[in-house]
Amino acid sequence: MITSPTLLLDEDKCRANIGRMARKAKNHGLEFKPHFKTHQSGDIGEWFRDEGVTGITVSSVKMAVYFARYGWKDITIAFPLNIRELDKINDLAKRVDLTLLLSDGNSLSALHEQLEAHVHVFIEIDTGANRSGFKVGHPEEIDQLLEKVHQQKHITCKGFYSHPGHSYSARSKKDILNIHADVIEQLTALKTRYDFPAEDFVTCIGDTPCCSAAEDFTAIDQISPGNFVFNDVMQTHIGSCTMKDIAVALACPVVATYPSRNEIIIHGGAIHLSKEMLHTDSLSHFGLPVVLEDSRWQEAVGNSYVKSISQEHGIITYPAGTLASLSVGDLLGILPVHSCLTADLMSGYRTLQGKYLNHIRNTLA
Amino acid sequence: MITSPTLLLDEDKCRANIGRMARKAKNHGLEFKPHFKTHQSGDIGEWFRDEGVTGITVSSVKMAVYFARYGWKDITIAFPLNIRELDKINDLAKRVDLTLLLSDGNSLSALHEQLEAHVHVFIEIDTGANRSGFKVGHPEEIDQLLEKVHQQKHITCKGFYSHPGHSYSARSKKDILNIHADVIEQLTALKTRYDFPAEDFVTCIGDTPCCSAAEDFTAIDQISPGNFVFNDVMQTHIGSCTMKDIAVALACPVVATYPSRNEIIIHGGAIHLSKEMLHTDSLSHFGLPVVLEDSRWQEAVGNSYVKSISQEHGIITYPAGTLASLSVGDLLGILPVHSCLTADLMSGYRTLQGKYLNHIRNTLA
Repeated sequence: MITSPTLLLDEDKCRANIGRMARKAKNHGLEFKPHFKTHQSGDIGEWFRDEGVTGITVSSVKMAVYFARYGWKDITIAFPLNIRELDKINDLAKRVDLTLLLSDGNSLSALHEQLEAHVHVFIEIDTGANRSGFKVGHPEEIDQLLEKVHQQKHITCKGFYSHPGHSYSARSKKDILNIHADVIEQLTALKTRYDFPAEDFVTCIGDTPCCSAAEDFTAIDQISPGNFVFNDVMQTHIGSCTMKDIAVALACPVVATYPSRNEIIIHGGAIHLSKEMLHTDSLSHFGLPVVLEDSRWQEAVGNSYVKSISQEHGIITYPAGTLASLSVGDLLGILPVHSCLTADLMSGYRTLQGKYLNHIRNTLA
Repeated sequence: MITSPTLLLDEDKCRANIGRMARKAKNHGLEFKPHFKTHQSGDIGEWFRDEGVTGITVSSVKMAVYFARYGWKDITIAFPLNIRELDKINDLAKRVDLTLLLSDGNSLSALHEQLEAHVHVFIEIDTGANRSGFKVGHPEEIDQLLEKVHQQKHITCKGFYSHPGHSYSARSKKDILNIHADVIEQLTALKTRYDFPAEDFVTCIGDTPCCSAAEDFTAIDQISPGNFVFNDVMQTHIGSCTMKDIAVALACPVVATYPSRNEIIIHGGAIHLSKEMLHTDSLSHFGLPVVLEDSRWQEAVGNSYVKSISQEHGIITYPAGTLASLSVGDLLGILPVHSCLTADLMSGYRTLQGKYLNHIRNTLA
């Protein structure tokens, strides 16, 4: 019996999400290096092997160490190289085919001085997210870095990596495609400038909205989306999936009901869902309620939502009639706004068939 | 050496925060039952014993189980009774003096039917937070519940519990005191209505802003604040502490610098700080940078802040000159907006003297 907040995983939906993206990559001739930062689960990682995946992407050295234990031998750490972790990176590089991300020119000299095994590097390109990476508009910085990398014996440049995170600001498929077209244009300009042989030099993008919605992958050789494995309410809002593609729901015990104000209190708060809030034109919320059945959840209950959360509490508001029959001791499902953060907080999964799946936070000290 | 995001704890500041609140409780003749949901650490719990604390408050059955292992014998679970957890509650009630929270009249019958050992209950009063509990304006519901509780052999009513969480909307000490005065007025009305002997029936409030700022505790017998143990940027903004009282800072490796845009990228994002954002009149941010020294951190760097975070990245923006000397491989401290959530995510502490302190997430599967 579920007694406390538990992250439910619909294995069928999750495997369908994985299969769909794997086929899309194959159909477009793209190498598929899925980002494992969303699920962070050795068990779920195996479902990707079933689709022929052999190389993966992660967002920290810790995650790379974790997945190396599960036998992954081709790992990209798609996060700006943290030179304070070079001891762990050296240890990893001796065991797996490791690709690092250079997002600041000064990281390379520290890498060069302390590196003890061969690594690949991606040069990170900032295609508009304004987070990390080099701007296409300043190619002289990229020129210099490429030249320096080419002088290193133990470091091979694999190509360009970009996370067009600004696609998260999209609110329709059309918005996504506009952003994607701009990203393609920038990466095409870079490829033309350098004209390296395609087999030695690849271009990778890694955001779920573009990878889900786009059909034009000119200038792209590799994709590394992550969120698509579960999807979430935010992705439906961006325009990259439908509610039926969301593969996780937080099962929350109902602990108090206040029918006079059409509100329910659940055990399920900021330390379960995260404080990621979705702002739409009509409302802002922390998740959408779904009625749970034995081996599935129903569609989201119209016009009801998690209106507020504190550390352990969630307050659900609902239109008269819809959720009024719930009482203390019942369970209510919540589709998360941002599944990456909910999965990180919950640190484990229970499939609808009752099987428990592991998570990095439960397996690595 | 710190190589990845690490939650630093200034033990002197933390012990001073604990000591100050313990003395305040003593001076006002209040029983001090600190809320342990903020630190969630058996090690830090011991520092409260040094101040004479013998009873504690937690926000989940899981936390109660954890602290019972550390020898705490008087535990209040200040969260609406979750009747799905009655097996664990029974097990606990046989070992410790357990107090539960009744926030919905329907919980009592399930408790009555399944209870195997004696428990105390608090009736939760909603003094304006509009989260959970009974409204003072509807005393007939409270009358009924009190009557039902008094019929139970294994259940003793301890009194009224209220978390005036609306004090978090305060933006000055004056705001806090206005809210507090209203809470006092409501609780006084309740006490007058029932007129139970004070030694058998207590009234407890549990928010850090009121407990920190107020001096009038008429009608209050017990306090259970939690956040004060660390404080955070939000508390300074509410008006319940100063920046010097903040006892935790997240040490984050600098992984990229972009001096042309006065921005730094740190390893430190939503899975470390949480997505709690502080909205002020002039800006919204996810934390404030502090320069780290060997055994302390400096004051917050003026006008610099964490402007944006993703799962692992934080983007720091700073005024020209202030943080420009930082480069990849340096560490930067971040004072968190909401220390409860940051502590939960970081799941452990490193004191400024290099000692590691445990956390529930690292000690309980």
